[in-house]
Amino acid sequence: MSSNIDFFFEPESVAIVGASHKPGKIGFELVRSILECGFSGEIFPVNPKGGEILGLKVYKSISDTSSKIDVAVIVTPSKTVPNIVKECGLHGIKGCIIISAGFSEIGNRKLEKLLLENAKRYDVRIIGPNSAGIINTSANFHACLEFRVPKGPVSLISQSGAVGGVMFAMARAGVIGFNKFVSCGNSCDVNEMDVLKYLLRDEETKSIAIYVETLHSGRSFLESIRKFKGLKPIIALKGGKFSAGLRAAASHTGSLASPYAVYSAVFKQCGIFEVPSIGSLFSSAKISAYHSSSNGERVVVVTNSGGPGVVATDMCESLGLSVPEPSERLKEKLSTFLPSICSLRNPIDLTAMAGYDWYFNTLKEISSSMEYDYILSICVPPSFMDPMDAAKAIVDLYDVYSEIPVIPCFLYGSMVMKSIKYLEKHNIPCAYSIMDAVYSLKALSYFGRLRGERS
Amino acid sequence: MSSNIDFFFEPESVAIVGASHKPGKIGFELVRSILECGFSGEIFPVNPKGGEILGLKVYKSISDTSSKIDVAVIVTPSKTVPNIVKECGLHGIKGCIIISAGFSEIGNRKLEKLLLENAKRYDVRIIGPNSAGIINTSANFHACLEFRVPKGPVSLISQSGAVGGVMFAMARAGVIGFNKFVSCGNSCDVNEMDVLKYLLRDEETKSIAIYVETLHSGRSFLESIRKFKGLKPIIALKGGKFSAGLRAAASHTGSLASPYAVYSAVFKQCGIFEVPSIGSLFSSAKISAYHSSSNGERVVVVTNSGGPGVVATDMCESLGLSVPEPSERLKEKLSTFLPSICSLRNPIDLTAMAGYDWYFNTLKEISSSMEYDYILSICVPPSFMDPMDAAKAIVDLYDVYSEIPVIPCFLYGSMVMKSIKYLEKHNIPCAYSIMDAVYSLKALSYFGRLRGERS
Repeated sequence: MSSNIDFFFEPESVAIVGASHKPGKIGFELVRSILECGFSGEIFPVNPKGGEILGLKVYKSISDTSSKIDVAVIVTPSKTVPNIVKECGLHGIKGCIIISAGFSEIGNRKLEKLLLENAKRYDVRIIGPNSAGIINTSANFHACLEFRVPKGPVSLISQSGAVGGVMFAMARAGVIGFNKFVSCGNSCDVNEMDVLKYLLRDEETKSIAIYVETLHSGRSFLESIRKFKGLKPIIALKGGKFSAGLRAAASHTGSLASPYAVYSAVFKQCGIFEVPSIGSLFSSAKISAYHSSSNGERVVVVTNSGGPGVVATDMCESLGLSVPEPSERLKEKLSTFLPSICSLRNPIDLTAMAGYDWYFNTLKEISSSMEYDYILSICVPPSFMDPMDAAKAIVDLYDVYSEIPVIPCFLYGSMVMKSIKYLEKHNIPCAYSIMDAVYSLKALSYFGRLRGERS
Repeated sequence: MSSNIDFFFEPESVAIVGASHKPGKIGFELVRSILECGFSGEIFPVNPKGGEILGLKVYKSISDTSSKIDVAVIVTPSKTVPNIVKECGLHGIKGCIIISAGFSEIGNRKLEKLLLENAKRYDVRIIGPNSAGIINTSANFHACLEFRVPKGPVSLISQSGAVGGVMFAMARAGVIGFNKFVSCGNSCDVNEMDVLKYLLRDEETKSIAIYVETLHSGRSFLESIRKFKGLKPIIALKGGKFSAGLRAAASHTGSLASPYAVYSAVFKQCGIFEVPSIGSLFSSAKISAYHSSSNGERVVVVTNSGGPGVVATDMCESLGLSVPEPSERLKEKLSTFLPSICSLRNPIDLTAMAGYDWYFNTLKEISSSMEYDYILSICVPPSFMDPMDAAKAIVDLYDVYSEIPVIPCFLYGSMVMKSIKYLEKHNIPCAYSIMDAVYSLKALSYFGRLRGERS
């Protein structure tokens, strides 16, 4: 079998085996997704009934297509899959993305073995089975059960389609999204290590998020990935940490997981930053993708709201980030335009009275002081403030000083949606919660240190 | 001074001293908020310029009003406040909510002392200074700088207006919100203990959320509150935990805080459940308000998405909740209608194929089995599913079994907004993240145990 898996992401043609005529069915929605997301290659729906789906001719079998096809997406019942893989191989298809479930994840290891034997014999690479599909937004290729996702620099490897689905929905709350997504499913052939090595080489991928329950190749993973330590930001969320979680992970992807401590150790040795939640996985990957040359651990919190500033400071300290007071010199500079109701001790509390000028001038003085490595800029608009004032101040600051990352954390929901979209449209990634913001800062500091060790 | 503070929440008439004619100014927006939220009492804007604001006659001074007024909201510059408090007292006003900042929080202790002396001499109770105001949604009374908030059974005491603002915005993402809100500010007179005792008596308040940086009465707080242990759910977020956070809290509300460990100990002795984030403060308070008779620590996770189910299980275990497997008997029952692709081991993974029937029948069998104390019901809709199916299954379940709390966690954002609103309209409070859901479950288990000890 080819060790190259690039063709999965940029196929010139794709078959959907198990395409359905019925809206709402997976086999229909997959065809619709591939079509509506603007895939420019040829699409071959396959279903013994023939006919048409969304204006596309339906072929009765793979061999009926009599065309060169790169990749087949398979959604037929599990017992039919090994034979379809054989057919695909005979037809010259290089890879199958198997969405169908009902293999080792429910104890049906024999069927999965048969599938893999056919794949090897007929020279077909497999993603899955029990995969939620793959996405490459650069090629407008969306062969995936999850909802659409905005484009962006983050790529995601996930042993759960739904973890992808949640992160894609988070991306839609802003502007910045994903480049590639692979749901490895049971990883019977292509596994997370293969995809990770591919993404480390992929120029469009600026950071990599991983949701992993089981590493299918513990020691070789460590050996292969360790040498790339610090090359690109990699952030991981481990699923299945304790007894019930391990049992759950076993049911989910059909593999037995090692103790959690082993994973944490492997992540550490490979330079992978570990996070505790889906939200922090998304924000850390997104923010690391944009601020990949930052360094240090000194955070200044600039806020218009005391409480959220205090909560952020607590979280920074609990993760080992430093939140030092400004120098007397910097405080003096700030006090030339900030009135005495503002606190200058870090958090810099601009109070609810803050508008564009206070934000802009404060961010500018801090940036030029070189006293901090990161600015966490919190905005909770009171009823008499338009948060766009704070958003514009941050965007305008980047025209003057772009060396120090500013992480905006505007709270919450519809109240700040316009500001978040405005910031992200200007390539300034936002965090949606204080915890997500602080984990992202810690990630920046972690990768900064790794790059220092590498160079 | 009166020890009663009830009048603050149900005034028959209110003055706004420092009312402004200019939209966007605090003194204008406060008048607008009180007016637009449907306050049925009399409103007296006060400004030496006179004129009209939003159709209301503006009085040149408090004494000009020649009417009985219960409460004055003060937004004038700090140095004018002590004298205004005196005027209020002379006019028979019972309490002042002082929004104005510039007192002990910026080191101006002398001015705060003068203010308090006048309050005592002229028999006026004070909320603030440096308060963001108060809200009582039952009386449509919104004397607060923060945006509007939906009604609900949660009351909030906060030493930060903006923590309230964030929680109100979270409430607007659903349907269920707040009953009362008090921003104590510098707490020069009425402090968090006074408000807490009031809310413990208040029949409309079903649970109490507290954001606290400094307890102004450590030992007496402990002594007063401990006897109410387990009476109502009380959930706290402590701001200012470590060195920089403590420094920040000192700047914010002008008080020196004790070490964090002291607070944790006091919370524990008073039966107050501590949470680490604003999101978990909101969801734990909201969910505790509705499920206040639940008990136990056995959680079953019912999900249509493996990964989020595994992450939830991990978090449950890390907080000491139990996620046991169903009995063989229950598994057999479930397997009569769930196909073999579903996992029955807890998490019950219904897979992406789940629709109304699988959700409803699974929830029903679990409820009638009595094997669990709480159901965490996760839904991450894939592209071919309408999450309303899962939402309707939960609402319909409550018509049959309402004993066991079902905590819905639908992810994420606009994809599930309609479902969340539907569930909350039917009085089923939702969590917006897995972490928030799991902290809420832990809160239910915590208060269940306390009630057991109390009875």
